[in-house]
Amino acid sequence: MDVPELIRRKRDGHSLSREEIFEFVERYTHAEVPDYQCAALLMAIFFRGLSIEETAGLTEAMMRSGRVLDLSEFPKPKIDKHSTGGVGDKTSLIVAPVAAAGGLVVPMVSGRGLGHTGGTLDKLESIPGFSTRPDLSEFRRVLRACGVAMVGQTEELAPADRKLYALRDVTATVESIPLIAASIMSKKLAEGIDGLVLDVKTGSGAFMKTLEAARELASRMLGIGTACGKRVRALITDMNQPLGSAVGNALEVIEAIETLKGRGPGDLVEVCRELTAQMFLLGGIEKPIERAREKFDRLLAGGYGLQKFAQVIAEQGGDARVVEDYSLLPAAQDEESIVAVSDGVVAALEAEAIGRASMLLGAGRERVESKIDHSVGLVFEKKVGDPVTAGERICAVYSNDRSRLPRVREMLRKAISITPDPVKTRPLVLETLANWN
Amino acid sequence: MDVPELIRRKRDGHSLSREEIFEFVERYTHAEVPDYQCAALLMAIFFRGLSIEETAGLTEAMMRSGRVLDLSEFPKPKIDKHSTGGVGDKTSLIVAPVAAAGGLVVPMVSGRGLGHTGGTLDKLESIPGFSTRPDLSEFRRVLRACGVAMVGQTEELAPADRKLYALRDVTATVESIPLIAASIMSKKLAEGIDGLVLDVKTGSGAFMKTLEAARELASRMLGIGTACGKRVRALITDMNQPLGSAVGNALEVIEAIETLKGRGPGDLVEVCRELTAQMFLLGGIEKPIERAREKFDRLLAGGYGLQKFAQVIAEQGGDARVVEDYSLLPAAQDEESIVAVSDGVVAALEAEAIGRASMLLGAGRERVESKIDHSVGLVFEKKVGDPVTAGERICAVYSNDRSRLPRVREMLRKAISITPDPVKTRPLVLETLANWN
Repeated sequence: MDVPELIRRKRDGHSLSREEIFEFVERYTHAEVPDYQCAALLMAIFFRGLSIEETAGLTEAMMRSGRVLDLSEFPKPKIDKHSTGGVGDKTSLIVAPVAAAGGLVVPMVSGRGLGHTGGTLDKLESIPGFSTRPDLSEFRRVLRACGVAMVGQTEELAPADRKLYALRDVTATVESIPLIAASIMSKKLAEGIDGLVLDVKTGSGAFMKTLEAARELASRMLGIGTACGKRVRALITDMNQPLGSAVGNALEVIEAIETLKGRGPGDLVEVCRELTAQMFLLGGIEKPIERAREKFDRLLAGGYGLQKFAQVIAEQGGDARVVEDYSLLPAAQDEESIVAVSDGVVAALEAEAIGRASMLLGAGRERVESKIDHSVGLVFEKKVGDPVTAGERICAVYSNDRSRLPRVREMLRKAISITPDPVKTRPLVLETLANWN
Repeated sequence: MDVPELIRRKRDGHSLSREEIFEFVERYTHAEVPDYQCAALLMAIFFRGLSIEETAGLTEAMMRSGRVLDLSEFPKPKIDKHSTGGVGDKTSLIVAPVAAAGGLVVPMVSGRGLGHTGGTLDKLESIPGFSTRPDLSEFRRVLRACGVAMVGQTEELAPADRKLYALRDVTATVESIPLIAASIMSKKLAEGIDGLVLDVKTGSGAFMKTLEAARELASRMLGIGTACGKRVRALITDMNQPLGSAVGNALEVIEAIETLKGRGPGDLVEVCRELTAQMFLLGGIEKPIERAREKFDRLLAGGYGLQKFAQVIAEQGGDARVVEDYSLLPAAQDEESIVAVSDGVVAALEAEAIGRASMLLGAGRERVESKIDHSVGLVFEKKVGDPVTAGERICAVYSNDRSRLPRVREMLRKAISITPDPVKTRPLVLETLANWN
């Protein structure tokens, strides 16, 4: 394999064959191609893009670089859900148990938070004892017991993706839609699923700032699904303000449990309902979509989602009593309020800035190796469109490090805007795309 | 220094500051920035280019990564000449001694051939005993004795360029005009010269295939010269067919000596005359250009160039008797002819294909580490525009490995075309650019 020639062809806008992509990924994974050649190729891909065939080839090559789970022992439909990441996005903690309670198998491999976005694993790890790193046989046992398991990426699944992602992170080649799509899909397809529901976030708190970019990423992932014979449906959802009220790990776990108890905030419930209904649709559990939505509501009302969540916590070593006793979760020492500076209507709660304020409190990671504080975060009592009077609390700040508060306050004040005029909000679910109906 | 952020800025089309470029080059040269980040930056530069300020900054940073010669002990003007590389381009062997004979100091650091192009060092090394690797004190001694020295790049001059070039070579980032310009200029400016004449080749046998690309490279190098306070003049010259008759190392040395004896082929003499005259102009030795040309002719006619060449050969350890006795040079075992297949006029002698045929004979390098055979090569008896009759010899092939001949013959047949129609040739010197008049 003439690697410089391969890089040159991509650089000059030509397509690489499936065989070339497979050989490149295999040789790179085994350190037979050095990082510097891979970095040059990644930057050429950043500029030239990848065709849908190339993206599908790259996805499969990364998927097959490690083990691909065989879940054929499970007779039920195996459907997962993935979010591209946002602020206050705790949907996995609600959707996965409800979907499992509704008859699906949900083998969910999740990630950690980075930058202003949170990660499912960090949230779960606020629960005392909860292990997000069971090995694959343990993962299988939990799946058998609950129909759902929620773990982190293991060394065995898509190692090429992990190696490539680490390189992209230090070479400014993360922000490439085909590379993002291939990275997500390679990990998800390695789970051995039948279908996947994608929650592609768009807005100030999302990686895809524009609807156009979100649509491009969604349709790219759908195309990969089609090429790999997997059913995929994607919702493009709003991430201009945090989803729900809580931002921060233990705080979000509490909100997820409240939601499973039927007391969740409207926006969070709506997104969870849509995602779960799409999973039921994909798995052939219920149709049309209206009946699938009703099924979500019934499962929630019957407490089946909560029961399933408690079960999976227990099976993964966590203290399941948290669903009844929130005092078992870590709590911050200090609480203070950010209040409205004037009468009016909340016009904006800038999600990225809020995510960064939360990160600064210690709830998120600036770097992959940063430690996080599970107890800290923010709880919003007002959302965009809500009327407020001057002095009324918009958000509570939970912290353990007072020295950081001045900067956090300043960031939040900038993130929150209040207007005297009426505010038009956009729908939560902006678009639905599917490669299978 | 946040290297990923630096790469991102270049990737997104922003400019890097002079300080950033200097720090990056210094850290890369000392292996504090890894190859993979440098490779990503190089590919981003390939796509986004560099401004003239950035190119000048990169040139100076590479130049200052090693020693910059101080030639102030030499009172005469220090002027060098550089060619971007072609087929049959032995001008340095003629221009450098004639320029020195005319009163200039010519501290010429040259390169080796790669691919279809030849290199001055390889040609000089056909001369028994000639050393192209004297250290810097020896280089200075030869300059003092002759006013001209012809050596290879040392470890001490522009080490950053050497490291960057090696990386570009394996990451498909060679073909970037600002990177080519900075690479050439950093080495040349490290010689401590007052001015530089550039021979930018264009055509099928050049790296710059189009006049437009050649003009861009030339004006980029002029801009670097301006930014660094150096006088630069550039000739854009034709490289659609080999320059002169001989292609191959010892064969080109013979042709260079013949030219110094006043018996050179017209095209070669013309290009050498123009280059040398430009050097005289730059050095303030003679003006206007017509008188500088006459000076070249006078020096040649008086045998002063030949005498200087013999002197520099002797000073650099070579056998100076070669200028009178060509049998001291290595000679190939076999000679055969490529003849015209029909009556007509030579329409094309495709320079790149001819360079590749010569490389296949052993005269050139496929890879940096390839060994070359100094004796083999081609001598053309007809050039573009010459009338030929069927069966008449167009070119002699000198070889030592009969097994390669069938492939060489086929390449040459494809490279040579004969037409019944009249052929229009383009001028040898297509354009002249200068940052100083």
